[in-house]
Amino acid sequence: MASPDMNRLSLNQITTENWSLKEAAEGCAGQQIPWISVWRHKVQEIGLKESKKIIDANGLKVSSVCRGGMFPAADKEERSRRIDDNKRAVEEAAELGTDVLVLVCGPSPDKDLIQSREWVREGIEAVLPFAEQHGVKLGIEPLHPMYAAGRSVITTLGEANQLQQQVGSSQLGVVVDVFHVWWDPFLYEEIERAAKTILGFHVSDWSVPLPDMFKGRSMMGEGVIDIPRIRQAVEKQGYNGPIEVEIINQAIWDQPGEQTLKQMKEAYHTYV
Amino acid sequence: MASPDMNRLSLNQITTENWSLKEAAEGCAGQQIPWISVWRHKVQEIGLKESKKIIDANGLKVSSVCRGGMFPAADKEERSRRIDDNKRAVEEAAELGTDVLVLVCGPSPDKDLIQSREWVREGIEAVLPFAEQHGVKLGIEPLHPMYAAGRSVITTLGEANQLQQQVGSSQLGVVVDVFHVWWDPFLYEEIERAAKTILGFHVSDWSVPLPDMFKGRSMMGEGVIDIPRIRQAVEKQGYNGPIEVEIINQAIWDQPGEQTLKQMKEAYHTYV
Repeated sequence: MASPDMNRLSLNQITTENWSLKEAAEGCAGQQIPWISVWRHKVQEIGLKESKKIIDANGLKVSSVCRGGMFPAADKEERSRRIDDNKRAVEEAAELGTDVLVLVCGPSPDKDLIQSREWVREGIEAVLPFAEQHGVKLGIEPLHPMYAAGRSVITTLGEANQLQQQVGSSQLGVVVDVFHVWWDPFLYEEIERAAKTILGFHVSDWSVPLPDMFKGRSMMGEGVIDIPRIRQAVEKQGYNGPIEVEIINQAIWDQPGEQTLKQMKEAYHTYV
Repeated sequence: MASPDMNRLSLNQITTENWSLKEAAEGCAGQQIPWISVWRHKVQEIGLKESKKIIDANGLKVSSVCRGGMFPAADKEERSRRIDDNKRAVEEAAELGTDVLVLVCGPSPDKDLIQSREWVREGIEAVLPFAEQHGVKLGIEPLHPMYAAGRSVITTLGEANQLQQQVGSSQLGVVVDVFHVWWDPFLYEEIERAAKTILGFHVSDWSVPLPDMFKGRSMMGEGVIDIPRIRQAVEKQGYNGPIEVEIINQAIWDQPGEQTLKQMKEAYHTYV
């Protein structure tokens, strides 16, 4: 199977968490990485206009903004505040020139997961018209079930697809991250079902043993995930957009960013 | 919702890992815990006959034997050896007087999960006639997806149900452990689908943050799992058998076993 084209490679900014947006953008430009996925906490450090200026000055395209979501909250006003925050994220995505806002849907405030999943749907429905006005799509990213208690009640691609279909808007899609979905026995049929709604594809790897539950992702090729097979399945459904390298790993954060970008390009070429 | 009856309480022996089978059996007898789930490595320490004698002398019933499974292996002869080992586990279960052998199906030797899942099915089919002759049922226990790389390619109740139906034998069922399945968006419909094939129900809790990926289970009531809701769903499908407390946790292992049994009885009464 041929390597994916280098013109699809995107640095998800969390991979170089110790870098500012400026450092990350210059790093990408210096190594001919054409795309970047921007995190909001990095934008907030310098402001939206400055962020936009830096990205443009380095000739980068923005594959997505991370992240909206975090909808479930026991208090109605708090849920409303979070919807407002998602609208700000939509504005930021539009301003930064991407049409994808990634949703990490949020954990449950209590033991009632079914209620929290309802709140996720309500939150998405409340944000969608605003997103549509701004030309931004919302991408539901199911997270690995080990994050169900702390980060996201949306845990499988099947669940994300079901939510997408319930809401029934072409403005809503799903994001496939191999680290979160590789284990799923129904992965390939759910990728087929997702078809034209796939808005993003993220890569990293699952090494054994996992070094850490949160900061435990590895460079592609260092773990057990059959990344090319998943990429091929996603492409078969028509997704040929950017491929984000998203690695949350303290050791990788602690090394020089240039080194990370080099490793990432090589691993992308060989193992994606 | 009423507490479950104390006559259904079972000590899964891994909860008191530092105890021998004799200590565990005497502990249960001393605290009127009527059931025990026996681990094979504990039986091996003293032999099958002595184990049986100890269990009988303490008036205990055996809810299950842990564990069979571990079917996938790249080498055909190795797969064959594992099938033989499962047959020995069946004999042990029969000798110890239980009709349930719990299957932890095993990880994949390589990146091809689909092939490994086939090997699991083939392994089960090879053991089933022997199990039937011995009056022992095989219970597929789906493990949490975070164990997909290291312990079990069977990761959801949906997958276990599908496997049960593919094999199509009344000698094969599923085991529902709340720690492994609580996060699943399709849990309640899969419990309905499992219906009469449910062979066991295991409890513990998922505390946040999880203290450890492997030895990270907590006493019931200390985490986020809605245990009564899951128990009710399982009972609605007709399962009224033993409820095993299965907690893999270094801190609980390190405390006196008697204390663990006391905590377990209280937590069972209040949070199960």
